[in-house]
Amino acid sequence: MKILLVGASGTIGKHVSEALKGHEILSIGRSSGDHRADIESRESLRALFRKLAPFDAVANASGHVAFAPLPELDAEKWKHSLGNKLMGQIQLAQEAIPYLSERGSITLVSGVLSDEFIPSGVAATTVNRALEGFVEASAIEMQRGIRINIISPTLLKDSEKAYEGFFPGFVAVEGWKVGQAYKKAILGAMTGQILRVL
Amino acid sequence: MKILLVGASGTIGKHVSEALKGHEILSIGRSSGDHRADIESRESLRALFRKLAPFDAVANASGHVAFAPLPELDAEKWKHSLGNKLMGQIQLAQEAIPYLSERGSITLVSGVLSDEFIPSGVAATTVNRALEGFVEASAIEMQRGIRINIISPTLLKDSEKAYEGFFPGFVAVEGWKVGQAYKKAILGAMTGQILRVL
Repeated sequence: MKILLVGASGTIGKHVSEALKGHEILSIGRSSGDHRADIESRESLRALFRKLAPFDAVANASGHVAFAPLPELDAEKWKHSLGNKLMGQIQLAQEAIPYLSERGSITLVSGVLSDEFIPSGVAATTVNRALEGFVEASAIEMQRGIRINIISPTLLKDSEKAYEGFFPGFVAVEGWKVGQAYKKAILGAMTGQILRVL
Repeated sequence: MKILLVGASGTIGKHVSEALKGHEILSIGRSSGDHRADIESRESLRALFRKLAPFDAVANASGHVAFAPLPELDAEKWKHSLGNKLMGQIQLAQEAIPYLSERGSITLVSGVLSDEFIPSGVAATTVNRALEGFVEASAIEMQRGIRINIISPTLLKDSEKAYEGFFPGFVAVEGWKVGQAYKKAILGAMTGQILRVL
């Protein structure tokens, strides 16, 4: 299977690559990887997909949102959050569709803050929930058997240090299990699903 | 109770006004009402709230999203949907907070397409789910007992004609029940809740 993996060099991306060993994985990154694209730019995504078509799967393991107390979530922080993790992934999905092979798949990423809330996490929850809605609603409009799913991992063990203090009492998950969830979405037959990895 | 009602002249707004009779309701609209403001403009909202402060509740019954098949949901339609119904309401909430009285409340609106999906409804589902996430997550960060909730009505009887064909099999609800849900959110004590009106 020919799989395009965006954010392959990140914490999650590495586990996805590992889980999908044996397949043809093309890594896509803004500043590293086999091919370059910026999820914030529709044009760069379109050019990328045109060049690499046809392919069987696109999976994303990238996307940023702002973390700040509600009164400090200003216009700029919202713009960054909606522009990167939300619209970046929506654009990725929309631009990939015409170039995916029949029964190909799209796999996006949300996160545990969809379902559980922390101080300074308002933008993360807002964006994650939006993405899950996008996936569930767009699944019913797909043609040619194209599937779309989303992985919602809790805090990864690899990231516990970086996020220390933000997630009190959250039990971190081993990264390889997140990789397996991507594998389930890509090699399986489900569509419109939120795969929570807790 | 002094209540600011945005979108008072709309289908839902009229039912909210009716349900809250006996209270001091200040109607806010872009082109009609006691006071003018555009939810897409943080500045106009801030000026409005400064002028009318203090108040006990802000309720919104306005907001547009684009309806289009997924391949036609282009950058402009996303920008409109995220800018109006999503960021318009987020800005409304954020800008109102400093001017709300203690234990005051914010009431936003999502809709049934959060939970049930129709063709051409991807932007509506995405935006509604984002708003519900925003409300649930921001409720835990509120100070001074300020509350925030969101009303998710299904199709209203008053709107059945306008949306004919879009919602096959959806059983429309009588508008007065939506008015009651706003009343429950504003006069009650709940926070971080999604009030579905089906």
